[in-house]
Amino acid sequence: MTLRFLTAGESHGPELNIILEGIPSNMSLLKEDIDLDLKRRQGGYGRGARMKIEKDQAFFTGGVRHGRSFGGAPLSIKIINKDHEKWLYAMNPAPVDESIAEVSEQLAARFISKVRPGHADLAGAVKYHATDVRDILERSSARETTSRVVVGAICRKFLANFGIDIFSHVLNIGEIGLSESAEVLRESLDYQSFKDKVEASELRICDTSETETRMKEYINQIRKSGDTVGGTVEVFAVGVPVGLGSHVQWDRRLDGLIAQALMSVHTVKSVEIGMGKAVGEHPGSVVQDQIFLAKEKIDKAFRYSRKSNNLGGIEGGMSNGEPIVCKVGVKPIPTLVSTLDSIDLETQNDSKSHFERSDVCVVPAAGVVLEAMLAFTIARAFLEKFGADSMEEIQRNYRSYQEYCLTR
Amino acid sequence: MTLRFLTAGESHGPELNIILEGIPSNMSLLKEDIDLDLKRRQGGYGRGARMKIEKDQAFFTGGVRHGRSFGGAPLSIKIINKDHEKWLYAMNPAPVDESIAEVSEQLAARFISKVRPGHADLAGAVKYHATDVRDILERSSARETTSRVVVGAICRKFLANFGIDIFSHVLNIGEIGLSESAEVLRESLDYQSFKDKVEASELRICDTSETETRMKEYINQIRKSGDTVGGTVEVFAVGVPVGLGSHVQWDRRLDGLIAQALMSVHTVKSVEIGMGKAVGEHPGSVVQDQIFLAKEKIDKAFRYSRKSNNLGGIEGGMSNGEPIVCKVGVKPIPTLVSTLDSIDLETQNDSKSHFERSDVCVVPAAGVVLEAMLAFTIARAFLEKFGADSMEEIQRNYRSYQEYCLTR
Amino acid sequence: MTLRFLTAGESHGPELNIILEGIPSNMSLLKEDIDLDLKRRQGGYGRGARMKIEKDQAFFTGGVRHGRSFGGAPLSIKIINKDHEKWLYAMNPAPVDESIAEVSEQLAARFISKVRPGHADLAGAVKYHATDVRDILERSSARETTSRVVVGAICRKFLANFGIDIFSHVLNIGEIGLSESAEVLRESLDYQSFKDKVEASELRICDTSETETRMKEYINQIRKSGDTVGGTVEVFAVGVPVGLGSHVQWDRRLDGLIAQALMSVHTVKSVEIGMGKAVGEHPGSVVQDQIFLAKEKIDKAFRYSRKSNNLGGIEGGMSNGEPIVCKVGVKPIPTLVSTLDSIDLETQNDSKSHFERSDVCVVPAAGVVLEAMLAFTIARAFLEKFGADSMEEIQRNYRSYQEYCLTR
Amino acid sequence: MTLRFLTAGESHGPELNIILEGIPSNMSLLKEDIDLDLKRRQGGYGRGARMKIEKDQAFFTGGVRHGRSFGGAPLSIKIINKDHEKWLYAMNPAPVDESIAEVSEQLAARFISKVRPGHADLAGAVKYHATDVRDILERSSARETTSRVVVGAICRKFLANFGIDIFSHVLNIGEIGLSESAEVLRESLDYQSFKDKVEASELRICDTSETETRMKEYINQIRKSGDTVGGTVEVFAVGVPVGLGSHVQWDRRLDGLIAQALMSVHTVKSVEIGMGKAVGEHPGSVVQDQIFLAKEKIDKAFRYSRKSNNLGGIEGGMSNGEPIVCKVGVKPIPTLVSTLDSIDLETQNDSKSHFERSDVCVVPAAGVVLEAMLAFTIARAFLEKFGADSMEEIQRNYRSYQEYCLTR
Repeated sequence: MTLRFLTAGESHGPELNIILEGIPSNMSLLKEDIDLDLKRRQGGYGRGARMKIEKDQAFFTGGVRHGRSFGGAPLSIKIINKDHEKWLYAMNPAPVDESIAEVSEQLAARFISKVRPGHADLAGAVKYHATDVRDILERSSARETTSRVVVGAICRKFLANFGIDIFSHVLNIGEIGLSESAEVLRESLDYQSFKDKVEASELRICDTSETETRMKEYINQIRKSGDTVGGTVEVFAVGVPVGLGSHVQWDRRLDGLIAQALMSVHTVKSVEIGMGKAVGEHPGSVVQDQIFLAKEKIDKAFRYSRKSNNLGGIEGGMSNGEPIVCKVGVKPIPTLVSTLDSIDLETQNDSKSHFERSDVCVVPAAGVVLEAMLAFTIARAFLEKFGADSMEEIQRNYRSYQEYCLTR
Repeated sequence: MTLRFLTAGESHGPELNIILEGIPSNMSLLKEDIDLDLKRRQGGYGRGARMKIEKDQAFFTGGVRHGRSFGGAPLSIKIINKDHEKWLYAMNPAPVDESIAEVSEQLAARFISKVRPGHADLAGAVKYHATDVRDILERSSARETTSRVVVGAICRKFLANFGIDIFSHVLNIGEIGLSESAEVLRESLDYQSFKDKVEASELRICDTSETETRMKEYINQIRKSGDTVGGTVEVFAVGVPVGLGSHVQWDRRLDGLIAQALMSVHTVKSVEIGMGKAVGEHPGSVVQDQIFLAKEKIDKAFRYSRKSNNLGGIEGGMSNGEPIVCKVGVKPIPTLVSTLDSIDLETQNDSKSHFERSDVCVVPAAGVVLEAMLAFTIARAFLEKFGADSMEEIQRNYRSYQEYCLTR
Repeated sequence: MTLRFLTAGESHGPELNIILEGIPSNMSLLKEDIDLDLKRRQGGYGRGARMKIEKDQAFFTGGVRHGRSFGGAPLSIKIINKDHEKWLYAMNPAPVDESIAEVSEQLAARFISKVRPGHADLAGAVKYHATDVRDILERSSARETTSRVVVGAICRKFLANFGIDIFSHVLNIGEIGLSESAEVLRESLDYQSFKDKVEASELRICDTSETETRMKEYINQIRKSGDTVGGTVEVFAVGVPVGLGSHVQWDRRLDGLIAQALMSVHTVKSVEIGMGKAVGEHPGSVVQDQIFLAKEKIDKAFRYSRKSNNLGGIEGGMSNGEPIVCKVGVKPIPTLVSTLDSIDLETQNDSKSHFERSDVCVVPAAGVVLEAMLAFTIARAFLEKFGADSMEEIQRNYRSYQEYCLTR
Repeated sequence: MTLRFLTAGESHGPELNIILEGIPSNMSLLKEDIDLDLKRRQGGYGRGARMKIEKDQAFFTGGVRHGRSFGGAPLSIKIINKDHEKWLYAMNPAPVDESIAEVSEQLAARFISKVRPGHADLAGAVKYHATDVRDILERSSARETTSRVVVGAICRKFLANFGIDIFSHVLNIGEIGLSESAEVLRESLDYQSFKDKVEASELRICDTSETETRMKEYINQIRKSGDTVGGTVEVFAVGVPVGLGSHVQWDRRLDGLIAQALMSVHTVKSVEIGMGKAVGEHPGSVVQDQIFLAKEKIDKAFRYSRKSNNLGGIEGGMSNGEPIVCKVGVKPIPTLVSTLDSIDLETQNDSKSHFERSDVCVVPAAGVVLEAMLAFTIARAFLEKFGADSMEEIQRNYRSYQEYCLTR
């Protein structure tokens, strides 16, 4: 059973819609499970005004009955865009009467012909033959990541049934940040306390309050200068069984699938697995994760352990039983208060780029979106390996595989 | 028409087989077009003995007639594994008679139960219930990248019809290398002379011979210590029209598709687009690529140009008309002469890993494979946008789009 | 650009949701375009009470702005299930409080353990581990065909831009019906007057009122006996250009894709193309459609014509320029007033099947659903051949292909 | 794990190539398993000269080691086209020297500009911009069904591990044939003796020798008149567990997937499941398959049985545990000795169609190809439901599902 989803809806349209298909029947699932992640996405220091306008909530319109998935029915979720009421003419699906002053005023105010560097604006307007660049930015907006978080929250809930946990933290914001990955603390890493620290931090960092203070000051300074700032996020999946993905064909490799999912997030420009790009700077004897028989792990799912996790839990395109660790580079939001040089598609002249209300720093929120995409990718690979249509069946299949693993 | 391919064949089996479907009819294609890239893959300082055993050659078994693709027929290519003759019993598709001494000797010599860290060996043996780890390594071997190079050479030939060029160079080998991307030289970059330099270099670098000498010494030293070494490769696609890929759905984003394709290559652990992970260290005003009207480009495909290319030619999940630039981290080959700690799956004891003949440094060759995967990804996106079943038809569609672009 | 869609929502849930992706930008589209087909689906003699409860209406929640598709944004459509208010407890996504009498009464009244032969009930309950068979029938209900009609209406609107028209008529209802396909009238066939006749008929037949009267009497008689009845529908696509689909790989054949789409409709048990199964009864000299140069067609898209259309417009898995003609066998609705022998999954005893409000004859409505699936399949194949992201671009590509065709 | 395959190779090219991916590791598989079905495809009364030229044999070039699949490696199979030696110039992948008389003669003799009605010739030549129609017919030739039979033989072997059997018989050849489906004999049907009868018959019928004699006379008569003839084939899958496919989304329905697979076979124009088109002629009380508790089946996989199998083993788009039964209409081969009216693409004049060596009746052989496509479709659905990478794992998953089924 392949897990798949489509999202739809615009930044200022009436609703966001998500259809997710392939979740087994009889999985517990509450609106609250999703709303929690929606709230996490809307948090983080450095967000703009919109995050206060809208407290996103998920409403199930299909696939969930009495707090559980049922009968294989696709899950359908909507989120109401509360902001939409100010955009009733500009975003109306039907033709509107421009002879009415109120209408023509809103249309004029919402029309955009100046493209913003760093956004889909220019390429999208050309590709889709748009006169009004709003035709592009309404859908290319990071508002769409809300829909991904919905998918991710459901997948996270699914994976929790098998002891698989997905989480993230921020490594740096611009110049300020940790000098090393949390993975250096691996030996002693207590995932729950790590996660607690991160969730308690407005910047989703696992560090002293001193760093957090410096980061906030830095963000404030960036805001004052009319600029924006990015950073680096590290995402983890722990408890993943050995053998998801496959080496046998290029498009079955779990690392490739993860890279696609993470790079598809709006502001991402790099994906590293494990040591990432640093693998190119060290000899093989340092990079490879040596294997030993983990006697103390015999009560767990797998008998073997590693002296390091430089390869980030993936070898030969498959999960190897160690935590999957990805570092992701998040670019600064391209909508700046201090506008950039650009062009006006209507006049075909040089111009300044359009400014649409925006955030200064979305790195912590990006972490929640990246968790969502990793959760989806792992859940899909899990369902491909273990098949099954109901939670009862997949639990049976998974347990029998775990028992088998202990004999290897 | 979606471009797709499957590869098959083992490292020591009789043949590698590739089927590629979706190339339009009437495209010029010669065996020599492919053999050239096969030779480039086999080159590079630091390769092992096998590269001398086999001079790979492509043989068309379907889809090519009188030097051109025809009738939409899938392209089928085989490469003979000359080494296979020493593996006739070990890799025989039929059961073999183990009572014959010669047979049982070869079987014993080829049987492997010690897994190599960094390879698919352990995860694969568990996933696929293998007793003989050879069941895994024969297919997970980087020998499979030969098949990808075949696909890439054909896609490169296709793209050349539209002025799209794919190439790569090595940025560093272990600690030795360029301090900056060739993109810093962008203003004055003359692609042809750049490529000529790279192709003339045994390490596929675009630099003084002094750096090359230091790299070779470094590789020699690594070899002596029984170790291996990785590096970083930069891959380019120039001449890509604006509007490949799309922002409208996560799995249509060109950056995600490129990341999957590059990360799926055997030794890759990081993929960066444009500035890559450095985007997280600079403010938005520095990162975004400002747009201006390029009067001197009016004879070209697109009217607008950029003051920088920090986003590597992709905005909003679409090509924006600038060169697509990706940096890829290549790990050291995990098969070391100085074996690593590992376990023996047969005895379930700690052990040393198995050593199979290997290279010391495959970074230059990895560049050729990465070019292949980028060429495939761009060609697939190109065919999705421009449709068409024959070269004549796609040329018509492409030209009319180019003319339209000049009106925007 | 591949056209794809997902549907979600249950028969008695709050909404039906549809996401359709891949429609080019700048296509005219109004709510009314869809509502018209929704009304056609709800019409037809022999329908049950539900068709009167609900007048289905489509609401765009994404992808449509000012009466046209825009920027490649996925189209998102919802339909409100007005009936849902009577099912608020039984179909609640959240857990409900069964200690409240009103709640527990509704739950008890809606619980089903007796499976209906001919439905998904038994196989679904086993596959998805359902205790309450409602978990299955809510999604397997033909209510889902409403969503398909939405997709079909949009695809029909798209195809109309290229002179491609999709329509259907009923050949027989049970024992009563035409003895021959309308294709025998092909020579003189005036599609518009044919369609007008069919649309004016309550049974969607193109025949004398005498036949319609006999059909109605037959349906009344079936209703009195507590039974149901099926029939045969013929679906057409006219104006399809030569060359959609392909012979080169099994899953690219247009006939296979059409067969899948039509057979996937709830009550369908047979799909025939052209003469269909009768091809096995006649010699090749009768079956093949001989080709001649159609001088009078030179102003049209294609220079050649046929002396017959026994192969229904498809040769070698491709459209050949002639009308695509499919005959589809529609089974009687399996929910009978006079219940059938079956079993009770709770007691695991023989039982009578459950009765849920139903229609007596859905053959005319099935025609509208079959049109929708054919329209989707043709539109998807059209977009694969002609690529393109905007209507402007696809019009350019299509026209240039038509001009080329006239040179062959 | 999704099962997928690509085929390549032309009718007169050097080889046919097949890559099949997704077969679990450790499945027994011998060349002989495939050669047996290849021989069955080449048999049957009414075949032409080519069947005697070539005794097709499968050669594994990847994925099989010591008589079993291994490590998830894609299976790669080649078949040598012995006929190719007469086509070395006409089908050469490289350009040939036309100044050599022998070359230019062969080229001239093999060039085709007259299209054959009923074939891919005309639509293919236009779609793919071919001057030489051979560019189309080489790949559209039914020679490609050889590759499908290879895939089917492997899938059949896989399914046999789970007690699933696929077979077919011929119902009629032109006007001569059985008046009823073998399903009417269902009560007493002994599958093995049924299959034995069919395999022993040159026309693959399960009937008295008197009918076979009449059929042969009929075929001889057709041959004399320079004509061809089709017929009807019935294909079965028995032992299929309940719950393959799904009702939840249109493209997951098993009936749709089967219809696509069967309709994609070269000469097929109709697919019926169970009663097929006759469902439209009978009331619901007759058509539906009533369910009862099958006490005598408690030792089998499922507790329930049916009083009939009019729906051919599929309800709600899922297998229901009863035999899957499909009737398929096979058209007469369109290449007739007595050529048909057509056109010459070179001269653009009316002409007679080209004659290429052909069979008179391929209905028995079509049965073997249809078995292959049904086997592939069932195996793919089976792997989607039961997941798993090795035969050991899928056996565990399947057994636990069977045990569960007995509790329902």
